[in-house]
Amino acid sequence: MKVDLSKISTVAPKSIKKEATKKKLEKLKLKINDLQNLLHAESKHALMVILQGMDASGKDGVVRHVFGAMNPMGCEVFAFKKPTEEELKYDFLWRVHSKVPPKGMAHIFNRSHYEDVVAQKVHSWVDDKIIAKRYDNINDFEKLLVQNDTVILKFYLHISKEEQIKRLEERMSDPAKMWKYNEADLVERGFWKKYMNAYESAFTHCSKHGAWNIIPSDHNWYKEYLIAEKVVEALEELKMKFPGMKKENGH
Amino acid sequence: MKVDLSKISTVAPKSIKKEATKKKLEKLKLKINDLQNLLHAESKHALMVILQGMDASGKDGVVRHVFGAMNPMGCEVFAFKKPTEEELKYDFLWRVHSKVPPKGMAHIFNRSHYEDVVAQKVHSWVDDKIIAKRYDNINDFEKLLVQNDTVILKFYLHISKEEQIKRLEERMSDPAKMWKYNEADLVERGFWKKYMNAYESAFTHCSKHGAWNIIPSDHNWYKEYLIAEKVVEALEELKMKFPGMKKENGH
Repeated sequence: MKVDLSKISTVAPKSIKKEATKKKLEKLKLKINDLQNLLHAESKHALMVILQGMDASGKDGVVRHVFGAMNPMGCEVFAFKKPTEEELKYDFLWRVHSKVPPKGMAHIFNRSHYEDVVAQKVHSWVDDKIIAKRYDNINDFEKLLVQNDTVILKFYLHISKEEQIKRLEERMSDPAKMWKYNEADLVERGFWKKYMNAYESAFTHCSKHGAWNIIPSDHNWYKEYLIAEKVVEALEELKMKFPGMKKENGH
Repeated sequence: MKVDLSKISTVAPKSIKKEATKKKLEKLKLKINDLQNLLHAESKHALMVILQGMDASGKDGVVRHVFGAMNPMGCEVFAFKKPTEEELKYDFLWRVHSKVPPKGMAHIFNRSHYEDVVAQKVHSWVDDKIIAKRYDNINDFEKLLVQNDTVILKFYLHISKEEQIKRLEERMSDPAKMWKYNEADLVERGFWKKYMNAYESAFTHCSKHGAWNIIPSDHNWYKEYLIAEKVVEALEELKMKFPGMKKENGH
């Protein structure tokens, strides 16, 4: 897919009403809970959710408000930060592969291997030849997971530059949010256009084994609703069933 | 490469003398020790050695007599047995990827992901469509590692059916070897031809990112010599250098 993020709205359409949507979200969360219970019981599939987005785009909020609906026993969250010195001794997928979900589990990746083709491209930490190889590596890796009955859901939390500065300023002034403020965020903000280009390129090259969902995210309530809806849709498509009583394996 | 194992000798050529070869092996082992020291000091490359072969083909002997020459600090051995119930919840490369060598290290795989396209093919535990996909998965995986400066050395320890039964009988009678005897080995022996075919197919499909070395292995001294020679060759090709004194990183 060819994406131009500047052409995609970051806000909820006027026709969508906040209160009604919030009510729908609550219903979807009940469904998510049921479906994840089924995923765990059946243990034939795994769910890998990838959350990407600019700083303050609301990734943590999605984890809390959408995936908080899952039973924590069957759902784990992994945050991928700047690679450690130890991690850099391996290929860039090594640390990610070690955290993929086994059958029956949902793993939420708060940032992911896409940082290795986005942030690293923006800052030219690796050249574009290597970035091109990494797109292939990512497709190969995701193919392997999909072959192994893993559903990969990718969400890009799309916010406007104006909404971001509003949120960063809130972080600077609200004592409950101050701990999240990081000076580096303002530096990264300076690379906005480059980030958009790097994301667009990643969406174009790495959508084979799990399409990217561009989620308008200036309104948290709308963002959470859209993501919850996608999760329900994807899990319902699996047509999972509760297994019968356990028998001794015959062979 | 297209391989017909029945056409490849399992013994040392008559012209090769045992005592002289053993002396050469000792010299190669000193070189291996030096080269591995350099690998560790430089930390720009990793070495992944894959040992495959029928039961009693002498994989453990190679580990002891060839890779025993390495400093254990920079060399680790991993034996991949029948996957556990836990491991089966993941794609077949998951447990292997977690054990790949970081830069500076040599990892020896005593059996490997090739079991997943050999033993599993022999017993039709997965169908040939999946085996074909796995060949691709293996190539993709090995490509990733090679791109990350990993040298992959693959050795198939080629023994005759006659030599195998001799060794299995030794295991049954020699108290020092009895612990290695496993009734299942005789069962697997019954699938000899199928194993050869499965290996030949794996060599044909998975030699892109590290060619298979077919090592005549009826004579342990010859087998060890050949493998040591390949290891030295491969490491010398890297043209490694000791780094200078450590400086603070400037950028």
